[in-house]
Amino acid sequence: MSSTTRAWHLASRPKGMPTDANFELKEVALADLAEGWIRVDNQWLSVDPYMRGRMNDVRSYVPPFEVGAPLEGGAVGTVVESRSPHFKEGDTVFHMFGWRESVTGPAEKFNKVPPLPVEAHQWLGNLGLTGGTAYFGLLHVAEAKEGDTVFVSAAAGGVGSAVVQIAKAKGMTVIGSAGGADKCAWVRELGADVAIDYKAEPVAHALLRAAPKGVDVYFDNVGGDHLDAAFAAARNNARFAICGMIDSYNGGEPYAFRYIMRVIAARIAVKGFIYTDYLPLMGEFYRDMGGWISGGQVKSRETIREGLEATPQAFLDLFSGGNMGKMLVRL
Amino acid sequence: MSSTTRAWHLASRPKGMPTDANFELKEVALADLAEGWIRVDNQWLSVDPYMRGRMNDVRSYVPPFEVGAPLEGGAVGTVVESRSPHFKEGDTVFHMFGWRESVTGPAEKFNKVPPLPVEAHQWLGNLGLTGGTAYFGLLHVAEAKEGDTVFVSAAAGGVGSAVVQIAKAKGMTVIGSAGGADKCAWVRELGADVAIDYKAEPVAHALLRAAPKGVDVYFDNVGGDHLDAAFAAARNNARFAICGMIDSYNGGEPYAFRYIMRVIAARIAVKGFIYTDYLPLMGEFYRDMGGWISGGQVKSRETIREGLEATPQAFLDLFSGGNMGKMLVRL
Repeated sequence: MSSTTRAWHLASRPKGMPTDANFELKEVALADLAEGWIRVDNQWLSVDPYMRGRMNDVRSYVPPFEVGAPLEGGAVGTVVESRSPHFKEGDTVFHMFGWRESVTGPAEKFNKVPPLPVEAHQWLGNLGLTGGTAYFGLLHVAEAKEGDTVFVSAAAGGVGSAVVQIAKAKGMTVIGSAGGADKCAWVRELGADVAIDYKAEPVAHALLRAAPKGVDVYFDNVGGDHLDAAFAAARNNARFAICGMIDSYNGGEPYAFRYIMRVIAARIAVKGFIYTDYLPLMGEFYRDMGGWISGGQVKSRETIREGLEATPQAFLDLFSGGNMGKMLVRL
Repeated sequence: MSSTTRAWHLASRPKGMPTDANFELKEVALADLAEGWIRVDNQWLSVDPYMRGRMNDVRSYVPPFEVGAPLEGGAVGTVVESRSPHFKEGDTVFHMFGWRESVTGPAEKFNKVPPLPVEAHQWLGNLGLTGGTAYFGLLHVAEAKEGDTVFVSAAAGGVGSAVVQIAKAKGMTVIGSAGGADKCAWVRELGADVAIDYKAEPVAHALLRAAPKGVDVYFDNVGGDHLDAAFAAARNNARFAICGMIDSYNGGEPYAFRYIMRVIAARIAVKGFIYTDYLPLMGEFYRDMGGWISGGQVKSRETIREGLEATPQAFLDLFSGGNMGKMLVRL
């Protein structure tokens, strides 16, 4: 084992859409194992749209990444050395040390994954932040229930594809939007009752046609025209869970909402949320999601890029729809 | 007593800002009193921004006004003839028959006002739809509580001025926006900690300066730049009660929101509401508001126009800020 590893650093803060120049792969020292520390070699790295926000110099629900420092993010690896009584070599762990090959740190910064018979990368996908975001947003924020009509944007993405399947497992009618015929076909395969190709026509038109009686729930990953379409199509007392607004993460023109005034007449409840607020409910999530995965009601699909070098581009491709299902990097 | 009366009718549907030509004052027959009916002569008519929505041919939470039919709206009058055991001559009643001198109808369409020592027009103001909207929106929709910092737009209007005073009576810090120095001075007289003159500078700048630690609650009467400012200034878990968006009632360009993405990081909850949904809570409202009025914590101010002929212009003036406090027509 070497005492160094390679890690992606934030070289500079992006303005608008990030480029390769904002990232730098550097050799960094690995601290020796203190008492209670472990060393982990990563197998899987997660790239997620929310990370774009941390590249800005803005205090938000998590501090911004620092320029010149390694990028943090979800990763799954194997314990290769342990000075903690709680971990042994070979344990699979999830952690947030991010885009790097190896890491050493105090044991409490790592989570041993629960003993479920799933592939390791699922802990970054349907059983991780991605699936948890879908689960808590749909069922706890939007309080979606059997019989509801649910609209979810970016339905072919990691979070969106989980929302589609959870909603179907719970007996809801699901309308998913995605860009292009291939993605729409997959959204239907996941069980969606209707898939809307937002590249083919204005999403508000398609949504009103797909749901002439309106929607009870909107799960927002996109913002902009998708959120406006949901305002247009909302039934009385509709609930919107605002998970992401990928349309706006890289700047651009603010969106002019035509239908936002329907919030009043339809008594729409719009609520933003952050996955980590729901960590106390992880037990419920593992129980339900574990059951759906083993029962075949929730399937996963990944877009996998190979090698640490591929990480920034995998991240950038999230913003041009380059992924079907969860985007991952395999080391 | 004649068997006719005069009533304002919707002559045509406005496109954008209404004009005099959309309204017509006509003589109409008054139906004879059937068993169980009463006849009421109006003293006070209410003009309210929400009525603009009913002039469009759009089904909303209430049906649209019909072209050629009398306009409906809140009014207070005196029973002058009764064939109902529940009403006697001289009773003060509130009803929704609107912009007219007299009306006959079945007793169940009229509400005898509670026995509180207030002037009759209060039943259209702080003890009516206006005050009730403020009360339910602030305390039940936004769940504002002691210690919260509350931002309310159109704070010199009927609803807004009630929000300011209820919030102060409940121990909140209040920032109100209004157009011009006179209105701002009155908003401060009502007890607001800060009054923002939105005509003097962009409201987002003023709000962030007035509330450097942000706001917990926003009571929206305006939409557009005011709502966007509230997105910018929202603290974590802020609650927005969306009562009105007067900026948009007459059409115009949809507003491009710069700060709406903060819904996610700050976990903002935005909820539209309609006064009538809270009618089951009128007992609580009368108890609290009656107490505040008799205790001097809630004062009323009216902008009063004289005579039935003045009604459409009184309504139109709502959209150019022509009122301080509640706009009323006295017959």
